[in-house]
Amino acid sequence: MLAKIRTVLINNSHPGNIGSSARAMKNMGLKTLYLVAPKRFPAKEAFYMASHADDVVEGAKVVENVHQALEGCTLVLAASSRSRKLRWPEISPRQAAEKIMQELHHPETAVAILYGCEQSGLSNEELELSQYQIIIPAIPHYASLNVAQAVQLISYEIYVAYLELQREKCYERGIVSHDLQHANEKAPEIMKEAAFATQEEMERFYKHLEETLLKIQFIYEERPGLMMSRLRRLFGAARVDKIELQILRGILTAIQKQS
Amino acid sequence: MLAKIRTVLINNSHPGNIGSSARAMKNMGLKTLYLVAPKRFPAKEAFYMASHADDVVEGAKVVENVHQALEGCTLVLAASSRSRKLRWPEISPRQAAEKIMQELHHPETAVAILYGCEQSGLSNEELELSQYQIIIPAIPHYASLNVAQAVQLISYEIYVAYLELQREKCYERGIVSHDLQHANEKAPEIMKEAAFATQEEMERFYKHLEETLLKIQFIYEERPGLMMSRLRRLFGAARVDKIELQILRGILTAIQKQS
Repeated sequence: MLAKIRTVLINNSHPGNIGSSARAMKNMGLKTLYLVAPKRFPAKEAFYMASHADDVVEGAKVVENVHQALEGCTLVLAASSRSRKLRWPEISPRQAAEKIMQELHHPETAVAILYGCEQSGLSNEELELSQYQIIIPAIPHYASLNVAQAVQLISYEIYVAYLELQREKCYERGIVSHDLQHANEKAPEIMKEAAFATQEEMERFYKHLEETLLKIQFIYEERPGLMMSRLRRLFGAARVDKIELQILRGILTAIQKQS
Repeated sequence: MLAKIRTVLINNSHPGNIGSSARAMKNMGLKTLYLVAPKRFPAKEAFYMASHADDVVEGAKVVENVHQALEGCTLVLAASSRSRKLRWPEISPRQAAEKIMQELHHPETAVAILYGCEQSGLSNEELELSQYQIIIPAIPHYASLNVAQAVQLISYEIYVAYLELQREKCYERGIVSHDLQHANEKAPEIMKEAAFATQEEMERFYKHLEETLLKIQFIYEERPGLMMSRLRRLFGAARVDKIELQILRGILTAIQKQS
């Protein structure tokens, strides 16, 4: 599915950026790279900056003009920070990723994302080949991402949207996959080795804790105050698991033996 | 608000990555950069790669150890792809950005994000200074982002969350009539009466805790094992505030008096 997404670098002038883009793409599951009339390619800097994504660089399709890179595409997006006289429909990288997922859901589709050259970005003619202009959020009056950084951010949003989609599909089919663990933005944050302690186990712990605090005279039976409530809230927020509970109970037992 | 977020690069060995990180940060409104024992700095490659973010590089605070970079911080996050024996609470960059916004909502807070060196990432000791490990989604069996790419993606998520927050605030004040009806009502998760404990306060607490556990012979000097790590993770997840910290320190003192 992700192979149907083309990253199209137009008139690249620094081959190192081709390598950095390839590395950024590969991390996010993308591998289809088009180079439109690059100034210098193949070049050793491209391979150097690619790290282990040299397969993406090697597989890059070099074409003479942007139209060749768009053959068969059903959706074209332009990554461009330049504001234009004629404003184009503008979307964020996140919205773009959603649009791409919707597009690829249909059969016989292909998507291209156009990135301009380092000096001047995309021309108006190139922009007008696209349906949407992707605007990467950045602080006003600075906005100076290089092309590989733009590829990185947009590829990342695509991959996050893709994982989310896979997760939903798996969920529908009742499959649980470990690779998709981090796709779920609503997943439990705290990875525990053991199951969470049950309510009853926590109640026994709080009782043990209260007894211990009474014994060491940190609290007094007649004035428990807010102390136990505060401690309950504290341990409640920590989401104690069964191993941690054993440790805490062990500490309390050790204190009682000593005092 | 964004100035309260520190990007902490630990043992950086390629100064070019400092520059790329600074450029990535500046685009996303971040400017507070800490360099913990960089191999080579100042270095011309850092300024070269920074493009026009040389002010961020020039303003970088060089410190000798990670503790100095965390002074005054109330929330510490570690960007790390390494899986560990003891799994730390894992969150995505997007979840991290939300947590950071919630944190900065409180007064007297500061946030640090730790990035490891190019060769080996963060050590376990460095990870354990943090409350959460940020896992950037990437394809399995490759996952080879460089440090500047990691800074880029995490900074981007922070900036997107920040913009969203600003939009919500404007909406609340009736300044913008956007279609924000569907915006999440994100209340801070944990309501605290007091400010969060700082990193230094927590470190003093952990030292006190360890001394106490040694004294009551719950742990032994020669075999601390995973015990202290587990307790750090537990109290880290609880997000201890200053009142709670007083209570915990008070309990430890009471135990020491008794035993």
